[in-house]
Amino acid sequence: MFHNILTKTLHIDYPIIQAPMAGGITTPELVAAVSNAGGIGMIGAGYLNAEQTREIIREVKSLTSHTFGVNLFVPEENVANEVEILKMNKHLQKYREELNLPIAGQTIGNKNVFEEQINIIIEECVPICTFTFGLPPEPIVKQLKEAKIFLMGTATTVKEAQFGEKAGMDAIVVQGSEAGGHRGTFLEKPESSMIGLISLIPQVVDQVNIPVIAAGGIMDERGIMAARSLGAQGVQMGTAFLTCKESGAHSLHKAAILEASEEEMVITASFSGKNARGINNRFIEEMSVYEGDIPSYPIQNSLTKDIRKAAGEQNNPNFMSLWSGQSPRLSKNITVSELVQGLVEGYNRIKGTI
Amino acid sequence: MFHNILTKTLHIDYPIIQAPMAGGITTPELVAAVSNAGGIGMIGAGYLNAEQTREIIREVKSLTSHTFGVNLFVPEENVANEVEILKMNKHLQKYREELNLPIAGQTIGNKNVFEEQINIIIEECVPICTFTFGLPPEPIVKQLKEAKIFLMGTATTVKEAQFGEKAGMDAIVVQGSEAGGHRGTFLEKPESSMIGLISLIPQVVDQVNIPVIAAGGIMDERGIMAARSLGAQGVQMGTAFLTCKESGAHSLHKAAILEASEEEMVITASFSGKNARGINNRFIEEMSVYEGDIPSYPIQNSLTKDIRKAAGEQNNPNFMSLWSGQSPRLSKNITVSELVQGLVEGYNRIKGTI
Repeated sequence: MFHNILTKTLHIDYPIIQAPMAGGITTPELVAAVSNAGGIGMIGAGYLNAEQTREIIREVKSLTSHTFGVNLFVPEENVANEVEILKMNKHLQKYREELNLPIAGQTIGNKNVFEEQINIIIEECVPICTFTFGLPPEPIVKQLKEAKIFLMGTATTVKEAQFGEKAGMDAIVVQGSEAGGHRGTFLEKPESSMIGLISLIPQVVDQVNIPVIAAGGIMDERGIMAARSLGAQGVQMGTAFLTCKESGAHSLHKAAILEASEEEMVITASFSGKNARGINNRFIEEMSVYEGDIPSYPIQNSLTKDIRKAAGEQNNPNFMSLWSGQSPRLSKNITVSELVQGLVEGYNRIKGTI
Repeated sequence: MFHNILTKTLHIDYPIIQAPMAGGITTPELVAAVSNAGGIGMIGAGYLNAEQTREIIREVKSLTSHTFGVNLFVPEENVANEVEILKMNKHLQKYREELNLPIAGQTIGNKNVFEEQINIIIEECVPICTFTFGLPPEPIVKQLKEAKIFLMGTATTVKEAQFGEKAGMDAIVVQGSEAGGHRGTFLEKPESSMIGLISLIPQVVDQVNIPVIAAGGIMDERGIMAARSLGAQGVQMGTAFLTCKESGAHSLHKAAILEASEEEMVITASFSGKNARGINNRFIEEMSVYEGDIPSYPIQNSLTKDIRKAAGEQNNPNFMSLWSGQSPRLSKNITVSELVQGLVEGYNRIKGTI
């Protein structure tokens, strides 16, 4: 494929990063398979507690000796408003009934988890740590840098990328509007931050001095070459790895992506209180009526947790968050090693023809 | 740069098409300059009547002997609702007052203009005819094909591209979500058709057998190489040509793009009743309150025409439609020949490095 500052610094064969999808998708098997194939497997630890984070890091280490990383959600202090929660729980009641769930919603997680996760990442000598939904405070960046951990922030606009560089990130993942799952936007209004990669990459590359990694809609060698043409040093691919055999995504989630077309994807805040891209379904459609009533992330995320969990257990895709990027027609249900090998061979094949 | 089926069929040096921006931007000077530079200049005739269409075609012909084209808006039969129009005119009244305009709104144009324009294009032997907002009926396609005119449709989804191929188009312009100006969407809901080019191009290329031309956010050699990597045979560039010396865009429109950043662009239906991307301004912000009251295209377009015109004459960018794609940071105020030469040199420079 190609070598550059990123492959050299991180001791990897290919500048292909598996996106850190939270919620059980990034199993140790998936993460290790990507690292073993020459890319970078990433643990999506955004929803894990400290002990779960340590456990999965150790499992990955037992399966690979190659470079891998952990992604954390930078915590947001949105205060839960009791009236708002009562109102939303009333809207959610019919889904709980349909899924035979008890009435009560979930409580919100521990705010100290983030600091505990940081310590674990340092203790376990994880080579790479990436951040979504913002940037860590200065003392944490310092602590991680002293431990020689490679740091990456997520940006959806030029300004966010510049903030990341200023905060000491070693590289920036630029997330285009095509991306599946949660939007990493943290400075701008959500609607101002839906920039397509073909616009976002060159504009960011011109304004920062650290390597740029492109994320969003990239599924095959064509996307990788496009990202590189635009100035990116590497790619981060989510949906392409989500449908792989080793991924922990629900089988109905994989099936839904494999059968989907690009115009079925919508942006919704209904599952978590934060905009994310996924396949339209009954929950998203019905909740769109209550758009103004959705509490901020992470409150809504906490309120819908039991519903999403039960939907998975009951094989009911109507209430699952079926995250996907805008290129579902390019998805395949193959092994990670087949996927990565195909990307490398494909890239080398088209390389001379452009 | 590179040669392929498109450059051969259309007798052009470079597969670079200047987007057919309507509303006075595509002056004969701009169109001819692009064709003379080795690309394809396109007349945006969407808002012109038959006589104006013939006149500009003849002016372009007097300035270039190279391939050029005309773009038409496929007419839509949205019936004007008197109550809706009264309501909207009430909302628009404050702008008319601010601009010292008479109370009455504009009337809607002649529905037969489209057929008249088709006849003129045939009579004047225009080499290329492209369509936005839908596809022409079968008899018109037949008529144009008999005259050996190269036809291109606009698509924002795979399904729309497939429709275009089926309708007899010789090539398809795929318009990514990054694009400035009006969305060409005609089959899907507007919100389902905001697909980024990095996702849209390969998914369309895999599903149609005619050449694909990429449009949206492409401003320099990096964008062209990315589009080609993704499988496009050529590019269509709007904003990059809009800020050129030869373009007829208002000087304040050019200045606004040259100073803008990517997150200032919004999608709005406030000017025309149809979604379009441009720089946020007072009109868009204030009209967003009346979103539900906006009559369909072309009714709203007709109602705001006097306001946009007066705003231009009075150098008041608050009420102008400042269309732009998502890559304003890459815009330059140079001549067309400098732009095209730079694209070609830049492309050849990065060619060997990817």
